[in-house]
Amino acid sequence: MAQQPLPTGREPILLRPSRSSATIAGMKSSIGMVGFDADDTLWRSQDYFDAAQLEFEGIVGAYVDLQDSRARARLYEVESGNIALFGYGVKGMVLSMIEAAVELTGQRIGAADLHRIVALGKDLLRHPVELLPGIGDAVEEIAARHPVVLITKGDLFHQEAKVRQCGLAQLFGRIEVVSEKDSATYARLLDEFQLPAREFVMIGNSLRSDIAPVLALGGWGIHVPYHLTWEHEVAAAPPADTPQLVQVADASALAEAVRTIAASMAVARDGSAAGAG
Amino acid sequence: MAQQPLPTGREPILLRPSRSSATIAGMKSSIGMVGFDADDTLWRSQDYFDAAQLEFEGIVGAYVDLQDSRARARLYEVESGNIALFGYGVKGMVLSMIEAAVELTGQRIGAADLHRIVALGKDLLRHPVELLPGIGDAVEEIAARHPVVLITKGDLFHQEAKVRQCGLAQLFGRIEVVSEKDSATYARLLDEFQLPAREFVMIGNSLRSDIAPVLALGGWGIHVPYHLTWEHEVAAAPPADTPQLVQVADASALAEAVRTIAASMAVARDGSAAGAG
Repeated sequence: MAQQPLPTGREPILLRPSRSSATIAGMKSSIGMVGFDADDTLWRSQDYFDAAQLEFEGIVGAYVDLQDSRARARLYEVESGNIALFGYGVKGMVLSMIEAAVELTGQRIGAADLHRIVALGKDLLRHPVELLPGIGDAVEEIAARHPVVLITKGDLFHQEAKVRQCGLAQLFGRIEVVSEKDSATYARLLDEFQLPAREFVMIGNSLRSDIAPVLALGGWGIHVPYHLTWEHEVAAAPPADTPQLVQVADASALAEAVRTIAASMAVARDGSAAGAG
Repeated sequence: MAQQPLPTGREPILLRPSRSSATIAGMKSSIGMVGFDADDTLWRSQDYFDAAQLEFEGIVGAYVDLQDSRARARLYEVESGNIALFGYGVKGMVLSMIEAAVELTGQRIGAADLHRIVALGKDLLRHPVELLPGIGDAVEEIAARHPVVLITKGDLFHQEAKVRQCGLAQLFGRIEVVSEKDSATYARLLDEFQLPAREFVMIGNSLRSDIAPVLALGGWGIHVPYHLTWEHEVAAAPPADTPQLVQVADASALAEAVRTIAASMAVARDGSAAGAG
């Protein structure tokens, strides 16, 4: 894989001169750390949440017409309204499902059916961790050259359980479970790592949570999309010529993308910010 | 407060020679970091959980006899059985309450009542943070002399919200929300802090979570009991002559207890391990 061009329809654009690379021109800069997202970057996650949503609709659909009641939209509204109180993760989702089910059915839903909603949450917490194709090799190859950390948001307990099961935990120098992945969070972590943002590369499937906040701090992002995206994570793609962002199609291209960024830093470091585009 | 003797019925025993202080005799050792627990150490917490339990019993008590059904014991059994899946915190507790309520009532409980259980959980997540008397001054005084960190277990999102509200966040160099407070967790944190256990002092109300695992690593503990203890946290008190443990009655004695430990380390450092008891 190492010798192949990036298998993506989008040309990597990070070698062009940019404000960011101008800023770092002449400064000694190299990759100090590579961060990985977890859900839908290392392992499948959204598939299970989508399946749980269908189960929820199956349960509520015995009481009300799903279309007429706008069941899916209503659940999303309840979930969104509760995020400031519950945060992300399965347990908060189940509590929101119970609220939505009680409301959608006009309190007609039976205790056994509400219990089924709790049970589908427990199944979700227990689902086996299934690594995405090629990600194990990618993390291993990148970890051989750079310190790598795992940065994931959501439920602390569930995320730690998945990390333990995934078989890659020993490759990560740190496992950071955070409550929100915004610029403030990344800034705090980089401060703890004592790392300038320009030496940090974040890899993930969510433009909103993994890429945009890191680019905003002056760091680098490698976006590896997943075939499913939770409505909450949908974000506008950055402009095609966004500096310091690399798009790849899948995990097999990650190690090469990291090497490309390292080469770009070397170009900037040597004061020659203009390069191949 | 600084000039008063420790207001506890139990004599501090840490100045006696012990295997631990013998080990560190002659080694340069001083307090490198002081950790604080949060729930029931910085602020009231168990009171709210106990009140929620009474509300739960009020709801379920409309369907069954609480004594005959062993409602309280059954809820605790369900909670304990779910901890390996849910971890600690309000959201997991509410899901366990729903499970227990459905089971205790033989699925007779109405949707509106199950919704009330979700609502009591939301109230619990929203309750204002009420600092315990004297703790603000204590943290401030200790933070003026040593780096302090907050180490709390439970729900990441809820704990972070309480930290934001408590007004003391700026005094803590790090806020660590962990999924379990056992020796392995403390060992990992001390490794991250690059601190030997013998230079670490942990302050908290739970012998099981705050004190025993730190003592086991060779660190120091200051136990400040709270008037309520969750059944899960009840642990046998260490022997009265446990080295490296100081018992205090309340927050007003914490700064003095930290000074006592610092003095004890100085004694050990000078190779004179025997001292006043």
